Amino acid sequence: MYLNNAWYVGAWSNEVNRQPFQRFILDKPLVFYRRETGEPIVLDDRCCHRFAPLSAGWLDGDNIVCGYHGFTYSPSGACVSIPGVEKKPKKIGVNGYPVVEKWGWIWVWMGDAEKVDDTKIPDFHYLQDPAWTGHGETLNLKSNYNLVVENLLDLTHAKFVHKTTLATNDVTEFPLTIKEENETIIVERMMRGIKASPLFTRAGNFTEPVDHHQHIIFTPPCYISINTTVISNSDSSENKSAEIRILNALTPETSTTTNYFWNLVRCFSLDDEDMTKFLYEGNKFAFSEDQAIIEKQQQMWDTLPNAKPVPFPHDKGIIQKGKLMERLITFEKNNHN
Amino acid sequence: MYLNNAWYVGAWSNEVNRQPFQRFILDKPLVFYRRETGEPIVLDDRCCHRFAPLSAGWLDGDNIVCGYHGFTYSPSGACVSIPGVEKKPKKIGVNGYPVVEKWGWIWVWMGDAEKVDDTKIPDFHYLQDPAWTGHGETLNLKSNYNLVVENLLDLTHAKFVHKTTLATNDVTEFPLTIKEENETIIVERMMRGIKASPLFTRAGNFTEPVDHHQHIIFTPPCYISINTTVISNSDSSENKSAEIRILNALTPETSTTTNYFWNLVRCFSLDDEDMTKFLYEGNKFAFSEDQAIIEKQQQMWDTLPNAKPVPFPHDKGIIQKGKLMERLITFEKNNHN
Amino acid sequence: MYLNNAWYVGAWSNEVNRQPFQRFILDKPLVFYRRETGEPIVLDDRCCHRFAPLSAGWLDGDNIVCGYHGFTYSPSGACVSIPGVEKKPKKIGVNGYPVVEKWGWIWVWMGDAEKVDDTKIPDFHYLQDPAWTGHGETLNLKSNYNLVVENLLDLTHAKFVHKTTLATNDVTEFPLTIKEENETIIVERMMRGIKASPLFTRAGNFTEPVDHHQHIIFTPPCYISINTTVISNSDSSENKSAEIRILNALTPETSTTTNYFWNLVRCFSLDDEDMTKFLYEGNKFAFSEDQAIIEKQQQMWDTLPNAKPVPFPHDKGIIQKGKLMERLITFEKNNHN
Repeated sequence: MYLNNAWYVGAWSNEVNRQPFQRFILDKPLVFYRRETGEPIVLDDRCCHRFAPLSAGWLDGDNIVCGYHGFTYSPSGACVSIPGVEKKPKKIGVNGYPVVEKWGWIWVWMGDAEKVDDTKIPDFHYLQDPAWTGHGETLNLKSNYNLVVENLLDLTHAKFVHKTTLATNDVTEFPLTIKEENETIIVERMMRGIKASPLFTRAGNFTEPVDHHQHIIFTPPCYISINTTVISNSDSSENKSAEIRILNALTPETSTTTNYFWNLVRCFSLDDEDMTKFLYEGNKFAFSEDQAIIEKQQQMWDTLPNAKPVPFPHDKGIIQKGKLMERLITFEKNNHN
Repeated sequence: MYLNNAWYVGAWSNEVNRQPFQRFILDKPLVFYRRETGEPIVLDDRCCHRFAPLSAGWLDGDNIVCGYHGFTYSPSGACVSIPGVEKKPKKIGVNGYPVVEKWGWIWVWMGDAEKVDDTKIPDFHYLQDPAWTGHGETLNLKSNYNLVVENLLDLTHAKFVHKTTLATNDVTEFPLTIKEENETIIVERMMRGIKASPLFTRAGNFTEPVDHHQHIIFTPPCYISINTTVISNSDSSENKSAEIRILNALTPETSTTTNYFWNLVRCFSLDDEDMTKFLYEGNKFAFSEDQAIIEKQQQMWDTLPNAKPVPFPHDKGIIQKGKLMERLITFEKNNHN
Repeated sequence: MYLNNAWYVGAWSNEVNRQPFQRFILDKPLVFYRRETGEPIVLDDRCCHRFAPLSAGWLDGDNIVCGYHGFTYSPSGACVSIPGVEKKPKKIGVNGYPVVEKWGWIWVWMGDAEKVDDTKIPDFHYLQDPAWTGHGETLNLKSNYNLVVENLLDLTHAKFVHKTTLATNDVTEFPLTIKEENETIIVERMMRGIKASPLFTRAGNFTEPVDHHQHIIFTPPCYISINTTVISNSDSSENKSAEIRILNALTPETSTTTNYFWNLVRCFSLDDEDMTKFLYEGNKFAFSEDQAIIEKQQQMWDTLPNAKPVPFPHDKGIIQKGKLMERLITFEKNNHN
């Protein structure tokens, strides 16, 4: 069960060009390409004639030509010419998807095109805000996207999974606050006077206790922004600070695989390429640790498809997220027309 | 749904010898071998005792011995001896299939042996006619056999898929004639005054416009003979001609895989081995292009199992073929006894 | 359908240590490790919190810690601490399995812990009896365990499958006696005055005819002890003897895979390491021949899921085994509470 009337990240801007390529979102094969003017286009990747993938074809101006028998589609998905058929085809074609290119990502609206709503794109402007810089990439995970979203909504796992990078050993001792606001879930945790994580120790050059503030925002259906602010504790002789945001889009590729787009941005040492590399490499390593445990978790989940996990206090964010998603999916189902 | 009372090509003559081997036809595992006199034998490849494959055993004269516990079968499939059982076994065995070796191929009758009918073998005598020569091979495709049959029944794809070999760029502008005759579908297209395809340009040494005649015969359940005659156009100063036949047997291995036996034969330059090599290599390359698009097409088809493709004028042959096959399969079902 | 209230071999003693690892039995993922005192522990390998595998975690004294969020379990499977939760958890945990370490193997009781019954462990004391010695290993077979059990209950296959090692060419000519005794099936065959098998010829240095006695004991659910005694025949001028036991545990990993634990032990030439190596290598080679035919047999079985094999006289042991297992499984089902 997916939320269809929603934006999903399909690609990085620099992946989409004049060479069409295929990628799945929500179990659907899609073709991505750009018009001559650069505007990104996303269509169902199955020719209406005999279902050959359009991504195996080529572009003719702004149109895409099926590489099998030459059916040609406009950027809207309408079939505009059929070789050997003089009359222009009517009412046949493939589904075209609303697309927005924003902040370096290609956002695809997977539901009813009449309900398209740009305001539902989460505020990920930090991806291209000149006051911020960073680097990211895409992981392909062999797990349902929910397991990845839920990984990020309970950061106590850092203590166990990311010992050399993101671990804050006291994380499990600090309470969470959870609130729902404007159809987002906000999870916060303030850890005062702790030892900085290995990553922040180096990034912020901390040698004394810090206050570490986690501010995590879940935006349906699959976005997590992790906003972390670390400043020297009031008892510290230092007066330092460091702030990063990890912007995560967990796009369901299929029910058991996820394309995980992420970027870690910071608002300090903007011109320090070594810092960019250090934070990117550190986070990349941490996410490979997540990938390992999540893929194993999915395998175990598969052995017990009907079992219910046991919730515990740190899962509050996950539980709230589950309720919000269920509400939105039920609403969408009941208001389908 | 397969047509069972029909011949399927199981192997090239030179593949079958005194070393039994396994191959699937219509989802069934079969064992192929030859008697001492050379006659080819095809049996179900599952010992009736405990289903070990007979192809993992060995021959004892004309009989085949299961390599697990020694059950022995005659070429008819009857179990003729069981180690440690003195009495000759009665009424047990494996299914044996009528086999005809003809024109270098091993033809297997997959249905009711009482209805076996040699006249249903398509006229592929060109495979061994001394007035013709050529070379072919077997491809294993990851697609249902219908997608391959239908590839060959609509040759407009050559323009898009086979640009460097079989393409006749005007093909989509010429109409088809379709007729059903004696339970075959005949698709014809005459293209007058066109530029010869790259393959024919070299094979027939044409430099001026040609008349290109396509004569395609579908014989149920899975045979396509493509008879192509190219002669200098009446307005041409040349007086040349070249004729080839591509003989195709698309044997369903499983519902999603096909063994594609083909041979391209010609009736000119019979002793020219370079010509044999040129035509074989050209067609082999073209068929690898077909394989690429058909396998991708199958993958897309799998994502939408209940969808119906949109027919268009060049699909007439495919549509007629579909009707004929449906009629034959329904008839077979209703006359099953 | 498995028999649950039964012991299954999960591992060799030397495989289980302070590094937890995962192995499946009866389709269930289990984690194996040892307490600090060395006692082996087997638990369900799914954290009750979010189903991450405990085997991806680590040990804390005798407890195992989930590597995802730190849930900690005692050797009984009870969850004893949750990071960030002060109160000790109650009534949550994972299933723990009764375990016995005996004769170098780790035996796991997969059913109702209240019905655990050590007397149901088959008498495999030869594995560590000082009067016997030998060497074995584990094979992982891509087949249901029944096909392996049944392979060992009809040794006539040796004549066909194991020509260079275990074959006794006259085996099919000698009758079997079958009896059920105390819920075991005993299959016996006495072959007098035969040529010794290649393996025994060398192991026992026989040059003249022998009496070869096969005494095969099936103990539910998946144990086969093959006790073979070969002595010089009364007409022989030699006076030699050799006795081996092949102890086999065929543990269902999943419904289509089996962990096959075996050891070949002998009670002669105890200090002869070359003899150990010779018998181990010979049997290992023979079992690789079994693996090849059984895995192919499973593939053929898969093509005909509802077919019934044809029994013949040498299958008597298999048939009796089937009846006993059916009786035990039905009894277990009817007495489930």
